[in-house]
Amino acid sequence: MRFVVIGGDAAGMSAASKAKRNRPDLDVIVLEATQDVSYSACGMPYNVADQSREMDDLIVRRADVFRSKQGIDLRLGHRAVAIDRAQKKVICKVGESLSEEIKYDKLLIATGARPIRPTIPGIDLPGVLVLKSLQDGRAIKDFLRKTSVQKVLIVGMGYIGLEMAEAFHARGVAVTMIELSPRLLPFMPQEMAEIVRKELSEKGIEFSLGVGIMSIRAEGSGLVAKTTANDVPADMILISVGVQPNSELAADAGLNLGPKKSVAVDRKLMASDPDIFSAGDCADAFHVMTGERVWIPLALRANRAGWAVADNVTGDSVELPGVMGTAAFKVLDLEVARTGLSWEEASSAGFDPVQEMIKSRSRAHSHPGNQTIYVNLVADSKNGKLLGATMVGKEGVAHRIDSLAVALHAGMTVEQFFQCDMAYAPPFSPVWDPLLTAANQLLKKL
Amino acid sequence: MRFVVIGGDAAGMSAASKAKRNRPDLDVIVLEATQDVSYSACGMPYNVADQSREMDDLIVRRADVFRSKQGIDLRLGHRAVAIDRAQKKVICKVGESLSEEIKYDKLLIATGARPIRPTIPGIDLPGVLVLKSLQDGRAIKDFLRKTSVQKVLIVGMGYIGLEMAEAFHARGVAVTMIELSPRLLPFMPQEMAEIVRKELSEKGIEFSLGVGIMSIRAEGSGLVAKTTANDVPADMILISVGVQPNSELAADAGLNLGPKKSVAVDRKLMASDPDIFSAGDCADAFHVMTGERVWIPLALRANRAGWAVADNVTGDSVELPGVMGTAAFKVLDLEVARTGLSWEEASSAGFDPVQEMIKSRSRAHSHPGNQTIYVNLVADSKNGKLLGATMVGKEGVAHRIDSLAVALHAGMTVEQFFQCDMAYAPPFSPVWDPLLTAANQLLKKL
Repeated sequence: MRFVVIGGDAAGMSAASKAKRNRPDLDVIVLEATQDVSYSACGMPYNVADQSREMDDLIVRRADVFRSKQGIDLRLGHRAVAIDRAQKKVICKVGESLSEEIKYDKLLIATGARPIRPTIPGIDLPGVLVLKSLQDGRAIKDFLRKTSVQKVLIVGMGYIGLEMAEAFHARGVAVTMIELSPRLLPFMPQEMAEIVRKELSEKGIEFSLGVGIMSIRAEGSGLVAKTTANDVPADMILISVGVQPNSELAADAGLNLGPKKSVAVDRKLMASDPDIFSAGDCADAFHVMTGERVWIPLALRANRAGWAVADNVTGDSVELPGVMGTAAFKVLDLEVARTGLSWEEASSAGFDPVQEMIKSRSRAHSHPGNQTIYVNLVADSKNGKLLGATMVGKEGVAHRIDSLAVALHAGMTVEQFFQCDMAYAPPFSPVWDPLLTAANQLLKKL
Repeated sequence: MRFVVIGGDAAGMSAASKAKRNRPDLDVIVLEATQDVSYSACGMPYNVADQSREMDDLIVRRADVFRSKQGIDLRLGHRAVAIDRAQKKVICKVGESLSEEIKYDKLLIATGARPIRPTIPGIDLPGVLVLKSLQDGRAIKDFLRKTSVQKVLIVGMGYIGLEMAEAFHARGVAVTMIELSPRLLPFMPQEMAEIVRKELSEKGIEFSLGVGIMSIRAEGSGLVAKTTANDVPADMILISVGVQPNSELAADAGLNLGPKKSVAVDRKLMASDPDIFSAGDCADAFHVMTGERVWIPLALRANRAGWAVADNVTGDSVELPGVMGTAAFKVLDLEVARTGLSWEEASSAGFDPVQEMIKSRSRAHSHPGNQTIYVNLVADSKNGKLLGATMVGKEGVAHRIDSLAVALHAGMTVEQFFQCDMAYAPPFSPVWDPLLTAANQLLKKL
């Protein structure tokens, strides 16, 4: 049996590797359009921050290891251009002219996502960059190496934009940011987003909300961005306004699409063809709290979906419970994390949510190094069940959010969560962990 | 109605405060034998570590605040000596001779625990100290201030002994430790305890396992401990061999006792008398995983039980699900944490447990500052449910354990836990969090 995988990143290589481990006799072919496989994309901002590191440090496993040690037929520079479902074959381009047809028994579409590039004048000028692939990362580092970059404009203030702001700041580059939305990090309550705003301001990062980019022009040795507010000169412009799924191949083959034109899959990661799966940033998933299809492209779920595809291809029947949108990121000296639904999301999804935000401490009151920590919890007023959480603080945020993710998966009520026997030691938390304090306060509204 | 509380520390003051908040008209009297109420006992090792801090920094709320702001009749220096259940009154000593009788409608016994002092010759010599009450903490700091302490012997290598080893080490005092048990931290798998041993050795802490103390004598300006192995000279000896519940008052009043002679209470914290509750270090609790009575004196559960008593006294009916023994502590540069049952404990409790230990990283593979992290998970081979976890590492341990505590409370299987959508960002974890990696490995044994 032959298992063909289109796309050699997180989901694709996870699926290929696990399928081969599950069934060493399986014929596994991976078609990857670029020359890169298996790298830590999320590590790129931290790599950019450090002049002394090579972008290729982020490669987890090299192509030859997949080939020689794992017996995967990994074909780099092979760009899939069509899927013939009737004949069960993939048509792909090798280089400029060569075309190949590869038969499959089972197929995985793991084509990922690409950065959105607004169609504005000047978007293709040198120095206007994006960050998604390792090649994008190399291009940013090359540009920083070859050009004297004193000032960068980052368009977009999502996870990646903020992580990159930290990276440029670490390299002593002045950072200006603009964001089209009038709200910073809209999944957070205003008071929490305010903490992030303050941190950005304190570190000298300039930013404007409710401002969009109109065009870019070269001027002197640099660039000037014309925005809806004013002209912003910069040596480099990073476009970080989100990503979109690479689902054209699936759509052209007549497969059903889900939210944001991602490939629609069931809980087994099967697309609307019993021999075709899709996983990773190009595919949708079910949200655990709402049961609705969502498109939340994050790394863990890509890896997990890859594994599940492998199991389903090699004969197990694995259904994934779904995603929760659990995420953490660092912005300068702050940790930000979320899981589940925000109050607004819960409200839109038809719940009758209540929320509470508390301010507590990261360590015991008398313990040195103590930091403020903010916790927002959202619950369903009908049955007291937890629906989501957001946190921000200088320490102890990123790992704490996982306790809430587990509670959400378990369908716990606020009361049940409040009764959990958590760890306490002065260097790590107050006696009542901030999560428990938040639950206790929220209980008063239920 | 009058609510009388014997003992003004975590459980007692939590109960008194919450009862008064619940019902401001309630007559609340607290009888405290010492002059101290409401302090962070767990903070004492870190306070000892810092010469510049006063032990009284650890006081969370002073007696006059409880009296004036909260309307609690707090009586310091009042030592309860007997409970007359027929007459519903407490007999207490005030100072040396004065005796008082206080009537109650509802009574809380929150008398805490005291350090075990082995009955060996020399145990009462100056410089032989324990650490449980704030007064003990002051005595240690006083001794360090007045005496030239170059070397300390710590008898006992439990949480407190190890935290105090760190504290003395931080002050430049040479530390020797002995532990009667041949195993260090017996709740941990041997390979994990080995990590702690290595850390102690690397930091120059001498220790011997399987060694007991026989007697102590004064010699020159210092002390000499005769142990089952050899003579150990020291300027100070800290006895840290565990604590025992202060349950004599309850026992003399004919109340039932539980494990280790703690006061036996039901899920409402009611002792074997409908008008008497007990909470905190003197009382037992139900273990969530086994349903059995256990005595695990820890701070969070004391506070929680105090609140539940208050609710039950003022008219709500609150039942606590129980404890899990979740604990974290720091020893030098290591974080150690546990929750639920170890393999041995699960085995003794009648489960058929399987376990797995994995070694992973605290951050993404390419991220600077990355540390090794060890996770041990225990599950029930009959139904795949998680039973317990132990972790050790230089960072990211203390908060991660709470995710497992939540999973245990929810009765999750290893598979359900493995499917939880956790946060990932390179500064905080690998894509597959060490907890998920451990779950995945354990799944292979189920």
